[in-house]
Amino acid sequence: MPLPAKLLVDIHTHVYLPRYTALLRSRSSVPLIRSIVNSEGVAEDRLLILDHEPSGGRPVGPQYWDREEKLNFMDKHGIDISVVSTANPWLDFLPASQAHTLASELNNDLEEYCSTAPSVASRQIKRLYGFGLLPLVPEITTSALLDIVKQIGELPHLRGLIMGTRGIGRGLDDEALEPVWAAIEKAGLVVFLHPHYGVDGSAWGDKDNGHVLPLALGFPFETTTAATRLILSGVFDKFPSLRLLLAHSGGALPALSSRLASCIDHDPVVASRLKHDARYYLGKLYLDAVAYGPEELGFVSDVISRADKFETGSSAKAAPNRSAGSKRMLFGTDHPFFPPLSASEKWKSVTENLEAINDVQGWSEEDRSGVRGENAVALFNL
Amino acid sequence: MPLPAKLLVDIHTHVYLPRYTALLRSRSSVPLIRSIVNSEGVAEDRLLILDHEPSGGRPVGPQYWDREEKLNFMDKHGIDISVVSTANPWLDFLPASQAHTLASELNNDLEEYCSTAPSVASRQIKRLYGFGLLPLVPEITTSALLDIVKQIGELPHLRGLIMGTRGIGRGLDDEALEPVWAAIEKAGLVVFLHPHYGVDGSAWGDKDNGHVLPLALGFPFETTTAATRLILSGVFDKFPSLRLLLAHSGGALPALSSRLASCIDHDPVVASRLKHDARYYLGKLYLDAVAYGPEELGFVSDVISRADKFETGSSAKAAPNRSAGSKRMLFGTDHPFFPPLSASEKWKSVTENLEAINDVQGWSEEDRSGVRGENAVALFNL
Repeated sequence: MPLPAKLLVDIHTHVYLPRYTALLRSRSSVPLIRSIVNSEGVAEDRLLILDHEPSGGRPVGPQYWDREEKLNFMDKHGIDISVVSTANPWLDFLPASQAHTLASELNNDLEEYCSTAPSVASRQIKRLYGFGLLPLVPEITTSALLDIVKQIGELPHLRGLIMGTRGIGRGLDDEALEPVWAAIEKAGLVVFLHPHYGVDGSAWGDKDNGHVLPLALGFPFETTTAATRLILSGVFDKFPSLRLLLAHSGGALPALSSRLASCIDHDPVVASRLKHDARYYLGKLYLDAVAYGPEELGFVSDVISRADKFETGSSAKAAPNRSAGSKRMLFGTDHPFFPPLSASEKWKSVTENLEAINDVQGWSEEDRSGVRGENAVALFNL
Repeated sequence: MPLPAKLLVDIHTHVYLPRYTALLRSRSSVPLIRSIVNSEGVAEDRLLILDHEPSGGRPVGPQYWDREEKLNFMDKHGIDISVVSTANPWLDFLPASQAHTLASELNNDLEEYCSTAPSVASRQIKRLYGFGLLPLVPEITTSALLDIVKQIGELPHLRGLIMGTRGIGRGLDDEALEPVWAAIEKAGLVVFLHPHYGVDGSAWGDKDNGHVLPLALGFPFETTTAATRLILSGVFDKFPSLRLLLAHSGGALPALSSRLASCIDHDPVVASRLKHDARYYLGKLYLDAVAYGPEELGFVSDVISRADKFETGSSAKAAPNRSAGSKRMLFGTDHPFFPPLSASEKWKSVTENLEAINDVQGWSEEDRSGVRGENAVALFNL
């Protein structure tokens, strides 16, 4: 019997479940989905996620909510398994009691979405797994959050949870979240940290550049800021087994990590706060491989692999080992975002990320297949 | 006669000239320098650059204004030549007429600061060169800006100019600046693009992390945003010989450049605006080597060297050539910022950047000496 082919696993792929879409359609303030008639006279749904959305919102359709569309997209691109997450803005805009109820309902919906999906041919695994949602909103109680962590931990096809960067209103470096980190760590769930708000829009100026600046820069800046604040808060010292997966290859964090370490070393307020050099903590992270270029991916794997050198007391001096660093990197597509502007068989946003994985200098074929899928199989225990 | 040793040239090193310091001391609103009595009962000067400055402002002393201190610092670290620039906030806070007058005076002061400095032993070159200042403030006239570009071009020891990211109030993608770019390009001056404002402080949260977040993240985010807006505005298509040097190795721009290119490709507003893929323009930039780590520097040189592949019509497929990329990278210290927290012979912020240059995988000894000094000799025609 031939060995089964290596799996291609997409760990960065989003859905707006029907229950969530219905809520967005019912709303009269952002976030919402509204129907418009577009410039060609055709009815079209537009999603407005944030106030002052450029270009009148994002055209949306069944690829945002219909499971068949997700499976079709996976088939078209040779993706065996997707670990699906609700896209932003999650539950951020809801009052606490509604967020609590809806988180529970959406987690059950996502479990059903996955558990009733087809299986991978000739394997005992499903084609869909999921990241659940926590009701991370102001005034939520710790016990409500812990209830939902427990729920996610008990739903067999949910293997982690997605969260934004605001926590319960004061960011992820809020001490009030420590019991939540402890529970997530204990449950062995993967936290997928994903941006939503970007940065203050005044930085983008008054030219119309579409969504480019908030998406290309604002999103990575937000992730970078949140992860840096987590490092500075000592969360990784307190919860060393916490498994945090950063969207978009960690944004700018890998590139700014030596600058961060230097700024910490030179600032009397924080210089002696952490157990290790800031770069050590990057080796504890997981990063998706959604960076669109092989040089970017190679660099990220360097940064992960050098982390051990920065453990306090380490005498390691070796040059970075890209193979070792690749073990914490995982393929993703960001589907259904970034559709091609003109009709094409495959999505460029997907093929670019696959080509990037293929073209990284210094990765072996084993490293590449790890990033394409085997690392996800291990991380999510598929 | 032995060949002269290779030069070490610091192109990222700041000064507050005495005329500028006197202005800051005379002010009662930020930016200002004020004298306080510190917690040990000792009188101390504090510089407040921005409102809500963390930690009560930055302790400052003669290393910020005294030329002897600059030369002592250079001697201590084996730096032969410094290309000195006024540190932020430059003239941003002044009314137009005062900014115009002061720019002219400070440029003359800096010329004198350099021209009366000692020479490099046995060479016909000075140890100090400078970047001038433009009066980039709202309501300044184009002719005033062009006057000062002309002045800088005629002062023999000024080889470029430093600027922030706000232009005359609407950023660097403002069409009103096009005559200024044209004049700078024609004069062959190097523009040193340097951050000042960072990003909106609400992103940093309410924990006291000293200056770490605005410096480690806010500064690079600001530079990245400004350079991206320049790319999107088509400035590099219109002024292909403009020589732009980005502070802090371009911030996050190299790491986000493939994401930027992908976001442009997928956005109908900008997809067909530029002559080339966004990554092409990174090969037209110069970047300092102030990134504190060898993996960062190696990656930046990869990104520079791959740029040619992204020229429209290019059929180049070669893997990045780090040696080629190193030619646009230049050593810097950020002196007098980032002094060591405890007494030490050499500054860690300097030795870290020198060690990083030394440790880049794939750079030859010639590449390293280029980054340490020969690239600056060529760029600034020293």
